[in-house]
Amino acid sequence: MKLYDCKVAPNPRRVNVFLAEKGIEIEKEQVDLMQGGQFDPAYQAINPRCVVPSLVLDDGTVIGEAAAICRYLEELHPEPSLYGRTPLERARIAMWEQRTLNDGIGAIGEAFRNRASAFKDRALPGPKKYAQIEALIERGRERALQFWEEVDGELAKHEFVAGGSFSVADINLLVMIDFAKWIKLEVPENLANLRRWYAAVSARPSAQG
Amino acid sequence: MKLYDCKVAPNPRRVNVFLAEKGIEIEKEQVDLMQGGQFDPAYQAINPRCVVPSLVLDDGTVIGEAAAICRYLEELHPEPSLYGRTPLERARIAMWEQRTLNDGIGAIGEAFRNRASAFKDRALPGPKKYAQIEALIERGRERALQFWEEVDGELAKHEFVAGGSFSVADINLLVMIDFAKWIKLEVPENLANLRRWYAAVSARPSAQG
Repeated sequence: MKLYDCKVAPNPRRVNVFLAEKGIEIEKEQVDLMQGGQFDPAYQAINPRCVVPSLVLDDGTVIGEAAAICRYLEELHPEPSLYGRTPLERARIAMWEQRTLNDGIGAIGEAFRNRASAFKDRALPGPKKYAQIEALIERGRERALQFWEEVDGELAKHEFVAGGSFSVADINLLVMIDFAKWIKLEVPENLANLRRWYAAVSARPSAQG
Repeated sequence: MKLYDCKVAPNPRRVNVFLAEKGIEIEKEQVDLMQGGQFDPAYQAINPRCVVPSLVLDDGTVIGEAAAICRYLEELHPEPSLYGRTPLERARIAMWEQRTLNDGIGAIGEAFRNRASAFKDRALPGPKKYAQIEALIERGRERALQFWEEVDGELAKHEFVAGGSFSVADINLLVMIDFAKWIKLEVPENLANLRRWYAAVSARPSAQG
């Protein structure tokens, strides 16, 4: 199989950190988002939504979304588990996977894409044009800060986002916090639990590169 | 266990259809969203995000998000499978679960909550106030129509959203299409595959009530 990747972009990074945590090596090809490589007809034939990452299996099947790629890799390589073991662990991780995506990476994406001049008329991913909406810049920042406060409360109770074990929810949150630097947003000083967590997770080998 | 439900709202309906497909009966308590029941201190103590549904387990543990509740119930009651059996099925369903949620129910929610006068300053779910943004009304409708076109193409290739078996992705899409009636948006006549699918899925016993 082969991963269509873009090293600098947040969603492909979710898969890259996941692969590193699992110790899986696969072939990768870079799609240059800065040059509009996702709209290249050759890539569009692979992923008509023009987003990265895409995982192409040996029989040509395409999985064109980061969360689905990670679920697939978890099935093939169950250890170490990044989606939980018990029904309750799996449910909690599914909940925080969703939240770190929507209220986390999604909030930063909202603030970023509605401001950056390179994203004029591309406020949403994909081939269809959507105008930027100025009000979403500030709303995205507010949502992110609100979410961090909530997560800080969770991290006061347990070591990782969804409980005692490192999971995909932690990967999403790590990617969110690094993505937030693009809009010059940092975790506030008073969120000590989140800052402790971020220092620890950033030091993992999977977070490098 | 006990489900905090709201019969008329889209996200609790996802769990209700899921329960009916599985043939699971559980205790339910209605939260009256029309009367602001989700902000009642008693409910806020259960779910600080003030959203429904919530599933409260016998030991008091709360799962406060529809997708996570469904994942939990799938673990306890694996048959009939609604999340797929093979790694690829599971990945495809995870992808379409995500899409039907974000680009489906999320798009309708965006159009609905930014327009309805009852949602003034509550453009996003939860206790924090967010102003309505007029531009999101039309954007939500456009996103929904775009998504339906894409799904129509999928349904030309296989019977259900994520492949040959009914899954949570079909539940989300059913809920989305019925939710769209709140904003007077219907599946266009020319999307024959989607209309065929909707007629069939709406006729399932789980879709009633």
